Amino acid sequence: MKRLLVANRGEIAVRIIRAARDLGIETVAVCSDADTEAKHVRLADAVMPIGPAPATKSYLVGDAIVDAARGAGADAVHPGYGFLSERAEFAAAVADAGLTFVGPEASVIEQMGDKVRARKVAMEAGVPTVPGTTDGTADVDAAVTAAADIGYPVMLKAAAGGGGRGIRVVDNEAELASEFPAASAEAAKAFGDGQMYLERFVRSSRHVEVQVLGDGKDAVHLFERECSLQRRRQKVIEEAPSPGISEETRQAMTQAAVSLCEHVGYRNAGTCEFLVDDETGEFFFIEMNTRIQVEHPITELITGIDLVAEQLRIAAGEPLGLWQSDITKRGHAIEFRICAEDPERDFMPGPGSVGRVELPGGPWVRTDTWLTPQSKVSPFYDSLVAKLIVWGDDRPTALRRAGRALSEFIVEGVPTTTALLREITTEPWFEEGQFNTGTLEAWLAERSQAAGMEATG
Amino acid sequence: MKRLLVANRGEIAVRIIRAARDLGIETVAVCSDADTEAKHVRLADAVMPIGPAPATKSYLVGDAIVDAARGAGADAVHPGYGFLSERAEFAAAVADAGLTFVGPEASVIEQMGDKVRARKVAMEAGVPTVPGTTDGTADVDAAVTAAADIGYPVMLKAAAGGGGRGIRVVDNEAELASEFPAASAEAAKAFGDGQMYLERFVRSSRHVEVQVLGDGKDAVHLFERECSLQRRRQKVIEEAPSPGISEETRQAMTQAAVSLCEHVGYRNAGTCEFLVDDETGEFFFIEMNTRIQVEHPITELITGIDLVAEQLRIAAGEPLGLWQSDITKRGHAIEFRICAEDPERDFMPGPGSVGRVELPGGPWVRTDTWLTPQSKVSPFYDSLVAKLIVWGDDRPTALRRAGRALSEFIVEGVPTTTALLREITTEPWFEEGQFNTGTLEAWLAERSQAAGMEATG
Repeated sequence: MKRLLVANRGEIAVRIIRAARDLGIETVAVCSDADTEAKHVRLADAVMPIGPAPATKSYLVGDAIVDAARGAGADAVHPGYGFLSERAEFAAAVADAGLTFVGPEASVIEQMGDKVRARKVAMEAGVPTVPGTTDGTADVDAAVTAAADIGYPVMLKAAAGGGGRGIRVVDNEAELASEFPAASAEAAKAFGDGQMYLERFVRSSRHVEVQVLGDGKDAVHLFERECSLQRRRQKVIEEAPSPGISEETRQAMTQAAVSLCEHVGYRNAGTCEFLVDDETGEFFFIEMNTRIQVEHPITELITGIDLVAEQLRIAAGEPLGLWQSDITKRGHAIEFRICAEDPERDFMPGPGSVGRVELPGGPWVRTDTWLTPQSKVSPFYDSLVAKLIVWGDDRPTALRRAGRALSEFIVEGVPTTTALLREITTEPWFEEGQFNTGTLEAWLAERSQAAGMEATG
Repeated sequence: MKRLLVANRGEIAVRIIRAARDLGIETVAVCSDADTEAKHVRLADAVMPIGPAPATKSYLVGDAIVDAARGAGADAVHPGYGFLSERAEFAAAVADAGLTFVGPEASVIEQMGDKVRARKVAMEAGVPTVPGTTDGTADVDAAVTAAADIGYPVMLKAAAGGGGRGIRVVDNEAELASEFPAASAEAAKAFGDGQMYLERFVRSSRHVEVQVLGDGKDAVHLFERECSLQRRRQKVIEEAPSPGISEETRQAMTQAAVSLCEHVGYRNAGTCEFLVDDETGEFFFIEMNTRIQVEHPITELITGIDLVAEQLRIAAGEPLGLWQSDITKRGHAIEFRICAEDPERDFMPGPGSVGRVELPGGPWVRTDTWLTPQSKVSPFYDSLVAKLIVWGDDRPTALRRAGRALSEFIVEGVPTTTALLREITTEPWFEEGQFNTGTLEAWLAERSQAAGMEATG
């Protein structure tokens, strides 16, 4: 690999260029008309304009990117995250053009990117998935038998339903026996089909994911990331390791991820997402992301391994240079996603011209950003302007550094979520690591209610 | 410790404020008239102006600083490096004012700060020092006997001489016997005294130092730093661990540093400087710095330990919270001192107004700096504007990151040494770790000669 086209923008394009440069690989940036002055464009060795600002006319146009790669003499394409990174047809088009795609083969993207297929593969590989029936039933006795296997609480879903309609949760056999007939009758009436699916209901769950690297033959894990703090299914703060799982769960979950990757002959970096039952500690495979994740730096900081460099090495055909026993974790890392949004106005995006920029620095503070003084936050793209990542020998140390580093973050001209993130670091539930996937939204709702009462009171 | 006065300026004042904030300690900055808008002033919780710009009228006025500490309600004073950090009378004045001095006791500063006394203490502690005579002699037979103990090559110095005058180096007994009478006669003629000192001559040496922490009773080491790359006795690039010593030397040297510290009951952070004979691998204690060093971050990056936080904890009376067996090293770190100087004009300092500032970022790149956009490089202080510190799993990885990070460093308005530092990272002798204390100056001399020939050719 001599010359890499980076098929992305923003902080991840900057990140990929840095990794390539560290390995002595030349870089080609692509840019839309809105990004001609962007940091990733200035850092790259060459740049190829690919179209107008809306991503559908530039960063999402696979053909334009493949043409740019050929035109610039690149021999490989890194898709980053988002945009075309998980489109099997793009991976195939890159390969068809005789270029190296930095990611798994198109067929693996297709297989693992489909939730139903990925779940089937996981079951084949012996990886736990959320227990449930694969066929519907309208018979209460069959339902009782199935539920005994699945384990309570059980969720009843109309087989013909969708979007959460007609869902009931039952806690034991007696409840199931008494509610099933009514639920089935309701489904028959609403959808013309009384058959029901049964599935384990997880009342309180964490979202934990395992980072893997594979070379098509062997796979290793790089421990897990805790990603439960989300707003509208967007991660806000991530950390590694997870403060909410036991060492036993960690070992079983990471081993499951490795088994799954070896089962499919996974090549390149990937992430296996798990749902962890906060009450029982059980974990279930949900899906796999066949690309680099936004939050990969926290894994880098606890393992010392450059994940993007590993992606490039694997794509260049090198075998995995890491043994599982070489991969150890040290300390604790936390990532904060800083967005150009106003949390006091329901997170309204605030595009505009950036004035002064001062980034936090000093010991164990990493800032991955495309922000530069006098740059522009475009309304065409997502509002992530920086990732602030801190490391500490233990979680409390990392947390204290986080508060300090967030207070040093200065960006004038656009609103940011920095102050809100800092506020979260001082919340007892966060300090104690006591949260699940619902915690952040519940806290935000309470907070805005309190603010509303204050405003009207 | 509740409120700390930081008796310094520039990057180290910023660094100390960050450590204090991480520990929940309030900070008070001091500033001269030239520094009222400086980053350390903006970051601190409070500020006390202490006088006009020249350091002799502000940062070097111990009384003014003690008064400021009392006036601001501080209970402790951190001296940083340089300025008053190794003045025993300042440490005493701080203690006399009922405040905690973040460093060793005045008596220890005095003892270890004096080269002759420190050498004596080292010998008592069984730590190797450069072999030599303590009394002069004019007798050739006595000289031959002494030289046999010292080991060749031996340097002859006029006891009454100074500044390197009348120095001769002899490689064996025959040379000594033939040259000693002439040397002694010359000394008698020049200084009125024919007595000579003999000392081991180290033809090619490295400057390696060991970081220690002590609580007055126990001491631990945090491995060594390689500091041979110097220009006019100023360090330019430092790295940890040293690429030029064996594991055996490392173990013996670090153990010697711990023995010395325990021998004097050393309290707080300190550094033991050693001269390493590049040919034999022997090492000799030279002196001790009783303060934090400029290059402390490289030790932090390989050990994961925050040295300034440890200083504060120890000064607050906590016992050493670290066992030697807890302190492990991981990977390789290199620091580059970026100065506002023009290497193409004999390193002429270039004070002035800073325009745009863009600092390098991303994985394993740390920048410790006071630079902000539109700040000023004052002619009153040293020209260090930033320290760029990179880490890698091994030395080649760290080196590649260094080159990349240096290329990302943008400071407009003042000259910097960044391009020269980057050039050094590509020199074979640096890449291979093949250098000693004379290498950088020799290379710079060659380089400027070549530039001169080019200019006139």
